[in-house]
Amino acid sequence: MAGILKERLFTPGPTPLLMEAQARTLTATLHHRTESFRQLMRETSGHLKYFYNTQNDVLIFSSSGTGAMEGAISNLVSPGERILVGTAGKFGERWLELARSYGLEAVKIETAYGHPLPIEEFDRRLRSEGSFRAVFIQATESSTGVSHDVEALGKLVQNYPETVLVVDAITGLGTTALEPDSWGLDVVIGGSQKALMIPPGLAFASVSEKAWNLIEKSKSPRYYFDFAKERKNQAKGETSYTPATTLVVSLHAALEYIRQVGRENLIENAATLALATREAARALELKLFAQSSPANALTAISAPEGLDSGAIVKEMRQRFGIIIANGQGTMKGKIFRLAHLGYYDMPDLFAALAALEITLNKAGHRCELGAGVRAAQDVYLKRRG
Amino acid sequence: MAGILKERLFTPGPTPLLMEAQARTLTATLHHRTESFRQLMRETSGHLKYFYNTQNDVLIFSSSGTGAMEGAISNLVSPGERILVGTAGKFGERWLELARSYGLEAVKIETAYGHPLPIEEFDRRLRSEGSFRAVFIQATESSTGVSHDVEALGKLVQNYPETVLVVDAITGLGTTALEPDSWGLDVVIGGSQKALMIPPGLAFASVSEKAWNLIEKSKSPRYYFDFAKERKNQAKGETSYTPATTLVVSLHAALEYIRQVGRENLIENAATLALATREAARALELKLFAQSSPANALTAISAPEGLDSGAIVKEMRQRFGIIIANGQGTMKGKIFRLAHLGYYDMPDLFAALAALEITLNKAGHRCELGAGVRAAQDVYLKRRG
Repeated sequence: MAGILKERLFTPGPTPLLMEAQARTLTATLHHRTESFRQLMRETSGHLKYFYNTQNDVLIFSSSGTGAMEGAISNLVSPGERILVGTAGKFGERWLELARSYGLEAVKIETAYGHPLPIEEFDRRLRSEGSFRAVFIQATESSTGVSHDVEALGKLVQNYPETVLVVDAITGLGTTALEPDSWGLDVVIGGSQKALMIPPGLAFASVSEKAWNLIEKSKSPRYYFDFAKERKNQAKGETSYTPATTLVVSLHAALEYIRQVGRENLIENAATLALATREAARALELKLFAQSSPANALTAISAPEGLDSGAIVKEMRQRFGIIIANGQGTMKGKIFRLAHLGYYDMPDLFAALAALEITLNKAGHRCELGAGVRAAQDVYLKRRG
Repeated sequence: MAGILKERLFTPGPTPLLMEAQARTLTATLHHRTESFRQLMRETSGHLKYFYNTQNDVLIFSSSGTGAMEGAISNLVSPGERILVGTAGKFGERWLELARSYGLEAVKIETAYGHPLPIEEFDRRLRSEGSFRAVFIQATESSTGVSHDVEALGKLVQNYPETVLVVDAITGLGTTALEPDSWGLDVVIGGSQKALMIPPGLAFASVSEKAWNLIEKSKSPRYYFDFAKERKNQAKGETSYTPATTLVVSLHAALEYIRQVGRENLIENAATLALATREAARALELKLFAQSSPANALTAISAPEGLDSGAIVKEMRQRFGIIIANGQGTMKGKIFRLAHLGYYDMPDLFAALAALEITLNKAGHRCELGAGVRAAQDVYLKRRG
């Protein structure tokens, strides 16, 4: 050990913790069947609507995000019904796995990793292939760093009264300006360990009136993720089962902080960091993995020719204590990913880029020291003045 | 507010807190007159000897560092006795103020701010001006960022059996390799909010046998900072008065961390950060305030011609949440100071330098963006490979 080394997360979830929100849990000796907890839940639900930018109900589950994704499948669709799934990465594929588990007929719209899904293809299928019960997509595909155009898709699906749109916005929330109500994003899934700055363990689902109507009719088996039961209970500040109480306390505190910062400023923060990272990557002669429509939540960068991205990830951790993410699945070893969602500021990025420049040079990718930082500084100056 | 802004201390005390040491206090429901607290005190005293690199007693006081400085005066010197004081900054002047308060005759060896004290002048005075009871100096003058040669001074004072050397090493400990025992540093003063990574509130004094002999004879009034009484009590893990218990808990935890890192590595860490900062300053065409013998604990940088350093301090805080220190006293507005002591790593410095480059450019000091970071990266590569 050659001195001090601080561990710093730059992964697209979990993300750096807001310590003030963590500290709040220390005095939280609370029982969930009390009026004080019910009040906390009701306030937290209200804050979540602000974060989501919606008037729809936002349900809270004690689970990872995948739990709420499963809930969207089991509550909305009945066995044998057809759904349309957009997939261009690991999390798109998760929708397909869930559909398979529930015996649904999933029609797939696929595009290559690193590309956004073609919305016109959804239009064509919806028009030509008869009725679908639901359409599933990611707002941001965290495995590739690409954003999909959920606004266009929402406005399209709005034309089909029997079809709902489900958006996995686990990394999209707090990094992309979403308008669930006017765009027709019927169910929007979120998770705690992303832009919300708290640990993993809570998942969220906003549900529109159009979706509630469908939920009444759906016949898939469900129990823990029963949306209607939760809606009834959470309207009173109750939860159907024992909730992860300290995470709710952290969430409440983090959402208070986010209200202070402002939802739009939080998104703008991620957008500036993402743009600065892309410009830095160009200055360091690195290729971005997203061919277009790059996400604000994270930036995926291709490892330089002949280098394993795993070696870059390892070296960043060992030299600087900086934890970035390798690629997932077939992208493992080929890309590395640097996150911008949640509790990050410009000095965080300057630090990570300077460390990356050293790491790349040591790994054999010659690049000018300081050049990536300078590109990020230029973006800061252009956007913040 | 334009997004996320994290507060980051780059001041030469208080310094960034080691969160693991803070967390330890949360379960510290302890009473100070118990065997478990006595054991904690004894272990902490042992760890402090390691940190100090000494076999001398190291006393712990619940006070700021100035309290232990006062103790060194009141325990060692009697009214009317003569002392020799080296001063080249605000903390040197503090020794003079203390001497005045206790009615001592202080002979001053002074040099201009930004310069190290001339040790040959101490030699001349000690030889020519008869007996002095004690000599006082700083290891590192935090107001100017200059190190004094306490090794040479110690070896000199060792030749005078009736004279002890008192070193204010509040910012010197953990940033400079000190050998109190072989160099003859009789009393060495420390403070908690510096390289020890915990909050303000504890002060330390190591005391040599030579100093203990003097303490027996000294007639200055003292009560709270009575070294002999504390020695007797602390040998048993007791304290004379109610100690700041949670700070002792943090200190114990922080010293365990420092033993893991290694005392030498901690010092090397500060030395590398300091060197990198000086090289960065040169690359940005800034003048270092220390004309020679710059400290590892902090770097003092002169504000560019025509600029008020207070404006740079303010802008760094407002734009980036980075808190650096203005000059003190007559140096206010003329220098700013960036700390390296304690819980800092290279990514911290990269972040601060990138922010400083932007801040300087906005303030009218044109410098190449990224150039300071690059100079620091080069130092990292040279020293860490």
